[in-house]
Formats: sequence, structure tokens, C-alpha cells
Amino acid sequence: MFEGLPTTIEFQLSLLLFVALAGYLIASKINQSAIVWEILVGIAIGPSLLGLITYTDCVETFAHLGAVVLLFVVGLEFNIKDVFNVKYGIIALIGVIVPWLGGYFLAEFFGYDFISSVFVGTAMTATSIAITANVLREMGKLQTEAAKAIIGAAVIDDVLGLLVLSFSMQVTHDTISIVPIVLVIIEAVIFMVIGAYVGHVYLSRLIEKLDATKLAGRFPETIFLFAMVIAFFYAMIAELIGLSAIVGAFLAGVALTSCTIKHGKNFKEGAEYLMIIFASIFFVSLGILADFHTLTLQILWFLITLTIVAFLTKIIGCYVGARIGRMSHKNSLIVGMGMAPRGEVAMIVALIGLNLGVIQQDIYVSIILMSLLTTIFVPIVLRHFMKD
Amino acid sequence: MFEGLPTTIEFQLSLLLFVALAGYLIASKINQSAIVWEILVGIAIGPSLLGLITYTDCVETFAHLGAVVLLFVVGLEFNIKDVFNVKYGIIALIGVIVPWLGGYFLAEFFGYDFISSVFVGTAMTATSIAITANVLREMGKLQTEAAKAIIGAAVIDDVLGLLVLSFSMQVTHDTISIVPIVLVIIEAVIFMVIGAYVGHVYLSRLIEKLDATKLAGRFPETIFLFAMVIAFFYAMIAELIGLSAIVGAFLAGVALTSCTIKHGKNFKEGAEYLMIIFASIFFVSLGILADFHTLTLQILWFLITLTIVAFLTKIIGCYVGARIGRMSHKNSLIVGMGMAPRGEVAMIVALIGLNLGVIQQDIYVSIILMSLLTTIFVPIVLRHFMKD
Repeated sequence: MFEGLPTTIEFQLSLLLFVALAGYLIASKINQSAIVWEILVGIAIGPSLLGLITYTDCVETFAHLGAVVLLFVVGLEFNIKDVFNVKYGIIALIGVIVPWLGGYFLAEFFGYDFISSVFVGTAMTATSIAITANVLREMGKLQTEAAKAIIGAAVIDDVLGLLVLSFSMQVTHDTISIVPIVLVIIEAVIFMVIGAYVGHVYLSRLIEKLDATKLAGRFPETIFLFAMVIAFFYAMIAELIGLSAIVGAFLAGVALTSCTIKHGKNFKEGAEYLMIIFASIFFVSLGILADFHTLTLQILWFLITLTIVAFLTKIIGCYVGARIGRMSHKNSLIVGMGMAPRGEVAMIVALIGLNLGVIQQDIYVSIILMSLLTTIFVPIVLRHFMKD
Repeated sequence: MFEGLPTTIEFQLSLLLFVALAGYLIASKINQSAIVWEILVGIAIGPSLLGLITYTDCVETFAHLGAVVLLFVVGLEFNIKDVFNVKYGIIALIGVIVPWLGGYFLAEFFGYDFISSVFVGTAMTATSIAITANVLREMGKLQTEAAKAIIGAAVIDDVLGLLVLSFSMQVTHDTISIVPIVLVIIEAVIFMVIGAYVGHVYLSRLIEKLDATKLAGRFPETIFLFAMVIAFFYAMIAELIGLSAIVGAFLAGVALTSCTIKHGKNFKEGAEYLMIIFASIFFVSLGILADFHTLTLQILWFLITLTIVAFLTKIIGCYVGARIGRMSHKNSLIVGMGMAPRGEVAMIVALIGLNLGVIQQDIYVSIILMSLLTTIFVPIVLRHFMKD
């Protein structure tokens, strides 16, 4: 509490929220997505330019919280039927296989070894649902056919991506074992089905019952607290079985969609207020994470081709999947582009690869910047395509 | 994100919010203050009993955030005139001097050295405004004469307490210098006056102006973001000049009291939602911080007398101050009891003393538990006294 300026929680929060606000102001002036500018101001204050702040534990904690709350809020706007859908499964599956192959062979072409190439392929798979979902939310297009396909497929895609990661982590050992991978798949399916059922049928009703007791009259805040406990608990379970925490938060949101509050504090409103603060921090932190100083000309070439391959493979894979599901040409294209941002999932893959010692700094930086570039360009393109 | 269960943010947040919810349920059943039960369930899950969680960086960050947001919300219910008041100044001054003397001489009596005794005295001075303010908020009594005196005096008291701490920290060095102490006093006064003026006259109007632009129509969340930037910025400045961050957050709240929002997201509502989550974590964390295992029979005696002296000296000091200000016998007694909780301020003093090496574990544990005991008993007594 009494250590110098740049490490206090207050300084970091003031700065993060202030630049997020600046991002909003710029976005409002030039009629752009706020997310892109939040990431760009993040780059400006981070190690790449001004060096006012680094990706500290405190920033990481708030950013992580932001991603979880964001996906909970997005989940609250979805019905269970929108998520469990064979059509979206096909989009997700092809949209994972094609980018994986693209990343793997590009890395091989640039002369990287087998394990590094496997990790590059893995980093290409998982879609960052947070970015696209927020653009769709900002535009009020969450209820369109393409939006539902994007979110539904991105959720399955995230699950698939993390399965591929589990597989890649097995490759680093001497023997390739199939048992843990099958285990994760079974656990994931059980979690999704039971979580959705229990949440939708029991927890949703329990909140409504609690809302009718005198407890909600005396302590209206308990209703909001209870809903957030469910959100974080689902996020925890998801992480526990090897999925991303945001998948759990999303599932909790979907499960509580139909819940209506009369007496207590409305948790949907409360979660939105939490999201305003912490999702802003999440987007700014994506910019802070990128350090342009580590970039050399040689890596730049790999980065550029990697980014192009990342865009093309995801768009092609998802376009084909969407067309198989009989979606229109334009909607299939929107789905493909909406799935292109890699965001924090690719960054996590890169981080794990680096920590395991199977990829080096050059690949690490390339993956981080590739996922950032897809994150920056997709909202711009998507806004343009969905406008008319 | 992939390390074991007990260190993930999700696990800690789920657990903290779940036990906070349990605290509310118990409090609702036996018609008690929720805070007391939040602290008690905190003790239950902390190192003292179940050991499910410790006071990690993550818990500390959220708890700190909770205290700041709590005081911002409390500040939003106050007018500037309620805070800058000579009557409250007298209550605060006598309510700091008497407990300091009580703590100092008790420690001397128990045979502790000069510097240790100075720190015990210092830990006795500052009131934990968060506890009392929340009891008053829960009871809807924030607008009574006694409540205004308690909050007003506690703010001045916090400033005085931190000045005494600066003084004590000078004592640990070889020479006692008066310059830094005078400097902190001057800085504090300048900050309070300028902060209140600028916030009330300029920032409050700026928010209202921003609320009338098209920005608030397109991104209503910016209004809430802007208000929180101000809150954390004030908290940061307060910490920067050596005051407690919560003094700054409180001042920001007071400065923005008269601000009314029409188009954007209402920041008063938003801050309250943030408070529900993070103030709960703050109160649970106070229980987690206390570890009863370090307690021996010898220290128990010191602890018991210290707690009694802490109660009596604060009640007497503030009672006398309130009577000088011509308050009634009963109201003066309520003010005295309302000022008795030491909470996190005493804990910070203990922590600094331990880090400087001028107090040992026995005094440290005694101060922590003393401040916890005052925190637990005051809401019970205060509820009883303010009911009729």
C-alpha cells in the first residue's frame, strides 16, 4: 500500500480505465469499434511505446476477470438451443482442422522443427470469441443467424482448440498417449450437458425462489452475489477439467438466461456493470502484452505470412463448414471472418509452449502479434460487412 | 491459468463470494449485520480453521479494490459540508490522542520497549470507517446526526492516524525530524480542499456535459468508466501523498454527490454493483487475515487488555469530543462506539511495523486480533443502540 507509484492498484486501475476511456472517445469520433482502440491505446502505454505499465499480476488478474465476466454477459443473451447445434459443430471442426494444417506446414516451410510446428498449428486453431462477441453486441446483431453461428461454433471451437492443446502437450513427452485426450473430451461433454441442465432447470429456479423470500427484501444484493458465484463456479469447473475458464462462464450465462428477478438486485444489470470496467481492462491488456521491441526483420516475414495464413485458413475452413450447413454465401463469409480473431487463446498456447521450452522467443512473439493483428483487423472488416 | 485448483482466480472468487453469501444467509436468519458473519466465515475458511484459502495477492487485490469502492459509494451519499466541520475535527482529535496514550502506556506496562509501545499506540488511533459506514448504510441511518459525526470524524481521524504513523516511522530512525510530518499535513489539507473543489465544480459538471453528448448515446458505459477513473485517481493521489487510498475514494464520492445522469449508465448504480462483489470480499478477507494458531496464553492476556483499552479509550475520547460539540449523551455514546472499530488501518500499521522490524510477531498478532475483535463487536453493539 505504501510502495512507489507505478505498482499500486490505484495507479494501475486509474491508468487502465483512463486509456480505455480514451479508446472510447477516439472510437466515437471516427465511428469505429471501441475494442480496436482499447487495444491500440494498450500498445501505446505498454512496453512497446511509453512503458507506463507492464503486464503485472494485478493487470492479469483484472484482465482474466474481465474475460470471464464478458463471456458470462454474452452467455446471458443466448438460449441453450443456440449453442448445442450440429451445424455449428461442423463449422467449428473444419474451422479448426484447416488452420492447424496451415500453421503446421508454414512453420515447417520456415525450417522450424516438428514440435515447434505442432505448437504454431495449435495456436492457429482456437477462436477468440470475446472480440467478435463484443463487436456483435456493440452493433446489436447478437440475434442474427450469422452471429448465432459464430458464437455457437466459437464455443465448440474453443473446446476443440483446447483438446488440440492437450494433444500437443502430449507430443512434447516421449510417448504419445491417447488416454488423457479421450478423457478431456469425455469430461468436456459431460460438463457441458450436466452444467447446462442443472443450471437451466435447478439453479435458475433456485435464484427465482430466493428472490421471493424475505432475504431478497432485506439483502437484495444476495441475488446478484449468488448469480456471480454460479458464474465463477462454472468457470472454475471448466478450468479444472482442462477447458478455458471463459467456456464455463459462457455456459453459466446461457443456463441463467431465462431467470427473471423481481425483488433482489438484477444480476444481469450488475454483471453488465462489472463487464464495463473489467472487459475494458481485458482489451487494454491485450495491447500491453505485445512488445514490438523483440521484432527483427527475419521474424517479421514469418509474422506477416503467419497472419495471412491465419486469416485465410480460418475464413476458408469456416466458410466451407457454413456452406455445408446451407448458409448463404454472404453469411458464410461473415461467419468465416467472425471466427478469425485468435486473441487470448492463441496467446495462452504461446505462453504454455514457451514455459514448456518447446518454442523459442521468435515463435512466441510471432504468435502474440499474429493473434493481435487478427484481433485488430476483424472488428474493422466485420463492422463493414455487417452494416448493410 | 492451468496451475492447480487452489490458486486460480476462479476458485478464489467462487469461494470468497460463496462464503460471503453464506454470511448473508446466516445474518438474515438471526437478524444480524452481514459484515460480522462475513468476517466470521472468513475466519472459518482461512488458516485459523479449514485452511481452504490464504491471504494471497489475488485476495489482497480484490479486498483493496473493495475498500476503495465501498468508500466511494459511502462518499456518494455525503455533501461536502458534512465532512469539513470543526465539531467533527474536535471529536477526531481527542479520539486519536486518548487511544494513543492508552495503547502506549499499556505496552510499556507489559514491558515492551519504547519503539514497540509507540507502534501499539499508533495502531490504536485510526478508525476503520468502512465497517461502521456499512452498518449505518445497511440500517438506512446514514443521514442521522450521529452518523454524519461518525463519518466526518472518521475521515479526519484517518488523516490524523496516518500522520501519527508518519511520525512513528520517523522515531525508528536515529533522529526525529519534524519536516516530513509538517509536509504530509500541508499536502493532506491542500489535497482535501483542491480535490473537493475541483471535483465538485469541474469534474461533476464535465460528467454531466459528457452525458449530454452523442458519446453517451452510443457508448453509455463511458459515463460509468469516467466516474470510476475519477474515484481511482483520487485514491491514487491520496496514497501518493501518504494518506490511505480510501480517503481519496471517499473524497471523490463526496465531490460527485450532486452529479445527475440522464443518458449514460448511472455510475452511482454501477459503483453499488461493484461494491456488492468487492466489499464482500474485503470483509471476508479480514477474517482470512487472522491466524489464531500463533496465539499463546501470554499474548492472550496482552490481547484481552489491549482490546478493552482500545474500546474504552476510543469511546471516552470521542464521547468527550462529541459532548464539547454539544451533542446529546446518547448520540455522543453512539459516536464513541461507532468510532471504535480499527479494522484494516490498524492492520496496515502492524504490517508496516513488522516489515520495519520494530515490532515482533506477538505484538503483530495482538494488533491484528484486537482490530478484528473491535470490528466484530461494534456492529452488534451499534445495531442494538441505534435501533430505538
